[in-house]
Amino acid sequence: MTKNKGNLVVISGFSGAGKGTVVRELVDRFGYSLSVSATTRKPREGEIDGVHYFFHSREEFEDLIRENGLIEYARYVDNYYGTPRRFVEEGLEEGKTVILEIEVQGAMAIRDQYPDAILIFITAPSARELADRLAGRGTESEEVVNRRLERAFDEADSIEAYDYIVCNEQGKVSDCAETIRSIILAENCRLSRQASLARDMKKGFEEILSSNRG
Amino acid sequence: MTKNKGNLVVISGFSGAGKGTVVRELVDRFGYSLSVSATTRKPREGEIDGVHYFFHSREEFEDLIRENGLIEYARYVDNYYGTPRRFVEEGLEEGKTVILEIEVQGAMAIRDQYPDAILIFITAPSARELADRLAGRGTESEEVVNRRLERAFDEADSIEAYDYIVCNEQGKVSDCAETIRSIILAENCRLSRQASLARDMKKGFEEILSSNRG
Repeated sequence: MTKNKGNLVVISGFSGAGKGTVVRELVDRFGYSLSVSATTRKPREGEIDGVHYFFHSREEFEDLIRENGLIEYARYVDNYYGTPRRFVEEGLEEGKTVILEIEVQGAMAIRDQYPDAILIFITAPSARELADRLAGRGTESEEVVNRRLERAFDEADSIEAYDYIVCNEQGKVSDCAETIRSIILAENCRLSRQASLARDMKKGFEEILSSNRG
Repeated sequence: MTKNKGNLVVISGFSGAGKGTVVRELVDRFGYSLSVSATTRKPREGEIDGVHYFFHSREEFEDLIRENGLIEYARYVDNYYGTPRRFVEEGLEEGKTVILEIEVQGAMAIRDQYPDAILIFITAPSARELADRLAGRGTESEEVVNRRLERAFDEADSIEAYDYIVCNEQGKVSDCAETIRSIILAENCRLSRQASLARDMKKGFEEILSSNRG
């Protein structure tokens, strides 16, 4: 089979659907490369530069934007967040599976620039379960939970732009990660990614037949 | 997630690519249902009616055609071959994964009637390897091998009508079957098969928010 470049896999999902845990499982278990975002927000306790984020000053970040060093970026509240281009492109060039865990808007920007990207949306089995998970964390006020539910309500409109929806059931992170791995394996067999194969086989048969017939 | 009906999986491939072995592995290992073809040809030694084929007289077969009892059928040399509709539709209704191992023409007829069918084409890694496998069986004359290569040459034109191409490497039937299983898992997460999910989630969020807010 033709050697393809790597796969770019975009993972988004509802707040509370467990994206982060699933992504960690994908990296730990299957060795996929996780893209580290750049941000101007201050590191929280325990966060390491280059692991959790690339922490930048606003000036550095704006330089990155100007140099086309980010695939996508956005501003939330007073901070910038973005995806450094270099890590992604080098990974793809080396044939790696590169994972981006990003918001819906960012995902759309990726699709525009990388039409072959695989867009996956992670959900809980039902709205009720998602609401329970958000409330069950117990660390947030009812108002915060409601704001997250409102956001999820809005995000539901974007699901249709994704290629796949994967359900992360309670206590089954490992199944969810395996499903995503199946999606990546399957995508590599899609006809659109094997365009030259039929042509190559046909040419091969022709050569063998003509040599067999002397 | 919405309970879907089963999946219809069509498996075709080059002569010599090992379709039969792969299909047996899929049935034995993952419990998929294999559709048994109907035919008017005489049973060969060891072939069991209802297992290898449903053996029919020409009159019975033509009755089946008239009663719309076949999804597709074709005539090769002097015999009819076809896919009985009942087994397939009952299996799908019960949510089973139903596998059809059929020729390229039949596959196109399936696609017309079951737009959701998953069409998979099995190949060897290269034309050379396929030719070696065909010759290596040692049971066929060079002329027969060449005729098969010519047929493969023609079949290569049809690959583009398939959704997936899967490579069955020498001695790796089990990997090939696992890839096909991944394709089936992945297909069930495709947005097109989960159309109502976004709508259901949105409705759910709305209800929860309105009850939270009293």
